[in-house]
Amino acid sequence: MRVLGLFLSLAAALKPLKYSSLESYSDFCSEISTFEAEYDHFSTRNTQKIEIRVITDDRFYQAGGPVLFYTGNEGDVQLFCENTGFMRKAGKELNAKLVFMEHRYYGKSIPDDKNLYLSAEQALADYAEYLVHLKSSGVTGPVIAMGGSYGGMLAAYFRIKYPNLVAGAIAGSAPVKFLPGLFDCRGFYRVTTRTFTNTPSGHFCSDNIRKSWETIKLIGAHMVGKRTLSEVFRTCDPITDVEPLLDFLEDVWGTLAMMDYPYPTNFVGDVPGWPVNVACSHLDHDINQEELLEPLRDAASVYYNYTGDLACLDLGDEGGDLGYNNWYFQTCTEFVFPFCSDGKEDMFRVHTYDFPSYSTNCQQTFGTTPREHWAEMFFSVETMKTIGGIIFSNGLLDPWSSGGVLTQEEAGPRNYIFILSKGAHHLDLRADNPADPEEVTLARTEYISIMKNWIAESISKTASSSISDSSKKLLFSSKKVHGA
Amino acid sequence: MRVLGLFLSLAAALKPLKYSSLESYSDFCSEISTFEAEYDHFSTRNTQKIEIRVITDDRFYQAGGPVLFYTGNEGDVQLFCENTGFMRKAGKELNAKLVFMEHRYYGKSIPDDKNLYLSAEQALADYAEYLVHLKSSGVTGPVIAMGGSYGGMLAAYFRIKYPNLVAGAIAGSAPVKFLPGLFDCRGFYRVTTRTFTNTPSGHFCSDNIRKSWETIKLIGAHMVGKRTLSEVFRTCDPITDVEPLLDFLEDVWGTLAMMDYPYPTNFVGDVPGWPVNVACSHLDHDINQEELLEPLRDAASVYYNYTGDLACLDLGDEGGDLGYNNWYFQTCTEFVFPFCSDGKEDMFRVHTYDFPSYSTNCQQTFGTTPREHWAEMFFSVETMKTIGGIIFSNGLLDPWSSGGVLTQEEAGPRNYIFILSKGAHHLDLRADNPADPEEVTLARTEYISIMKNWIAESISKTASSSISDSSKKLLFSSKKVHGA
Repeated sequence: MRVLGLFLSLAAALKPLKYSSLESYSDFCSEISTFEAEYDHFSTRNTQKIEIRVITDDRFYQAGGPVLFYTGNEGDVQLFCENTGFMRKAGKELNAKLVFMEHRYYGKSIPDDKNLYLSAEQALADYAEYLVHLKSSGVTGPVIAMGGSYGGMLAAYFRIKYPNLVAGAIAGSAPVKFLPGLFDCRGFYRVTTRTFTNTPSGHFCSDNIRKSWETIKLIGAHMVGKRTLSEVFRTCDPITDVEPLLDFLEDVWGTLAMMDYPYPTNFVGDVPGWPVNVACSHLDHDINQEELLEPLRDAASVYYNYTGDLACLDLGDEGGDLGYNNWYFQTCTEFVFPFCSDGKEDMFRVHTYDFPSYSTNCQQTFGTTPREHWAEMFFSVETMKTIGGIIFSNGLLDPWSSGGVLTQEEAGPRNYIFILSKGAHHLDLRADNPADPEEVTLARTEYISIMKNWIAESISKTASSSISDSSKKLLFSSKKVHGA
Repeated sequence: MRVLGLFLSLAAALKPLKYSSLESYSDFCSEISTFEAEYDHFSTRNTQKIEIRVITDDRFYQAGGPVLFYTGNEGDVQLFCENTGFMRKAGKELNAKLVFMEHRYYGKSIPDDKNLYLSAEQALADYAEYLVHLKSSGVTGPVIAMGGSYGGMLAAYFRIKYPNLVAGAIAGSAPVKFLPGLFDCRGFYRVTTRTFTNTPSGHFCSDNIRKSWETIKLIGAHMVGKRTLSEVFRTCDPITDVEPLLDFLEDVWGTLAMMDYPYPTNFVGDVPGWPVNVACSHLDHDINQEELLEPLRDAASVYYNYTGDLACLDLGDEGGDLGYNNWYFQTCTEFVFPFCSDGKEDMFRVHTYDFPSYSTNCQQTFGTTPREHWAEMFFSVETMKTIGGIIFSNGLLDPWSSGGVLTQEEAGPRNYIFILSKGAHHLDLRADNPADPEEVTLARTEYISIMKNWIAESISKTASSSISDSSKKLLFSSKKVHGA
């Protein structure tokens, strides 16, 4: 079993580095500069700097207006800029300055040092340093952080670690509870399965996928079968072992559920609208083992080759780009992400989560020992409850919602939750689209109204905090206090 | 002008390492163990460990009871254990486990690495790691952090950085605003002066001290005068330059104000009760320049040689122990402490604060460039307001109160402030004493009642947070959400 491979679905958000062309980014995402941050914010003698890319967009900004700050996640910041159209919608309404800051060790902000200082803590300190710099340059309005997926986790973390810098945060599809002991590790595969079952194809789709694992193993047990598999899936290299194919398919289903948007997107490769429906249309009746391979291939192709441009399928290609490996690295240091499945309530193979083997895997791959409970301690949901000012939004089609904050009780009275029954992975942060379900359109309007409140609160707070004057008075007017 | 010397008054809290004998500590502070923490909590590839000393005291503890956790500051943890008798008073009433944890790079928790990972952030992570370890070993009660001076800053910081681990914090005499731009840098010297003026000797005391600087310079301008100064102050080495003597005296007055307790103490050397009164009794009338030296020496001796045991005064001795230098180091990296004075509203020489010369000084002394606004950004008072659950207490005799949180407005509605008009540096955290002013006794009672509330709140919160069950229900019962 490939423990690390199970993270692919989140890491998959990086694939567009290969699929979509960076040259084609819109004007909105082309104003790139670099910011020099401390290389290591937490040691005393390191004076080295790191160059972090920042995209700014001032076309809606009016002096004194707020700053909408995208807490860049595990990939090229231009990609996230392009796919977070909601920032521009909100920016227009709020006269805001838009900033998208790259996460260190991703995109083009990558030092060559074996990820020595790749961590969320360091990235947050980069963001904080940049904002302090921005404020000193005259941009004084309140800041609202925003991000999706790991970027959404970072937006929430930024709010709780620097509430003095950030008036509020939108954490879109942020699996902040996707940590050991905090949630049911079966969630990811169960939600994926539900998304496949809730298509017009119904249980046929997930049932066919459930039986496909055994089917492929049976066929692949023989030389001839392996050749068949290579031919059906058009692999670049002949299949000699079925495991990579099984892993790949698991990732495909998870990713399709994440990307189950109502209109065609190319965020993670070109997919049609409602791609899970399209995939399941190939698996919409009881298909016997002998006939399962081609429909399965067609369903999977909806993710990996919908345009038909792919000459062959490279199963050895787990994303050669650095960003991809770096997210794995983070799961092997500070973010232990537990996945498990039973193959009954979900349509996947049985996977167990146990920390010792997870850790061994990390040791073998990166030479690191993950800190099982660090993220829970350092970025706790309990802390988010205490501090407030966060919107947690989750789409129920999205497997990552299983590790999200889903109830008001869990969020506490000072935060907001939005549950989008027809939402995939941070659909709400994308630009408006006529195909959007109404709930998504409504949510975006709500976000902006909440942001307005945060901004007003922050401004009134700042106005009333010329406190030093009154404290000075206390200090120097109370004479003769010491009568002893 | 000696910029760094101006921090001596806080660093003076370390002097007892030389003055009082560590062997004499009570039973309460003798149960010492060590905890292995991450050497660097914020890099990914450093697997080294650091051994941190911890004092535990279980004699009041009842299973399920709370933990009172002293966030050790810039010195030997046994010293702070011994001088924080309030922990035991509260522990007894709350059936609490008492823990005093040493700050890395102080006391006996010192690696030999040029302070590479000496910082508040790393120390807080040590504390957090220890508490997680404690919880996993079955100590499940709520934790309340407590500390005085820099330790008080750390207690407040601990609460805001790890509110999930700490239900509340008592920040005794914590100058959390003693940072560039956050307060009036003249405060320290002005409060010291007020403390000296508000003695029975009145303005004579501070007026005599104010003129002493010129007096010493005049006398010290000649060879014969220098000899006189050496004789009067009984210096170990003949005085060749008056500057060290002037610096020393400034530190003495500041420290006496800090230590102006109503009963004899030996926290920073043996001093009588109300030592400022005693010092000022030598300066209680208008003394002309020719006669000022001996009364001045007698006044200063109340701090440095009250018992008369000191053979000679070593002006070159700025505290040779590591701890002392390490606090200086911290002010040259993350805690820029600005002091200034005008010699009119205060009794000191004129000192200006400007960051460039402060920084040059740090560069020369330690080779470090201090981060002028880091502490304000990272440990902001604004954040403390947002999070709440902190008691800020300050004594108005204490020069450090000038950088404390002194008004309810500044503290915000979720924190508490206590102003002790007859309180010196964290007098309230000491053990009960019959000579205590009534306000101090009352404050201690109040603290315990607030702590009881924090504990009750924390326990009820934990009880109601079996939230994952309800979220699971939401996750797996909402079938057919996807009708598209």
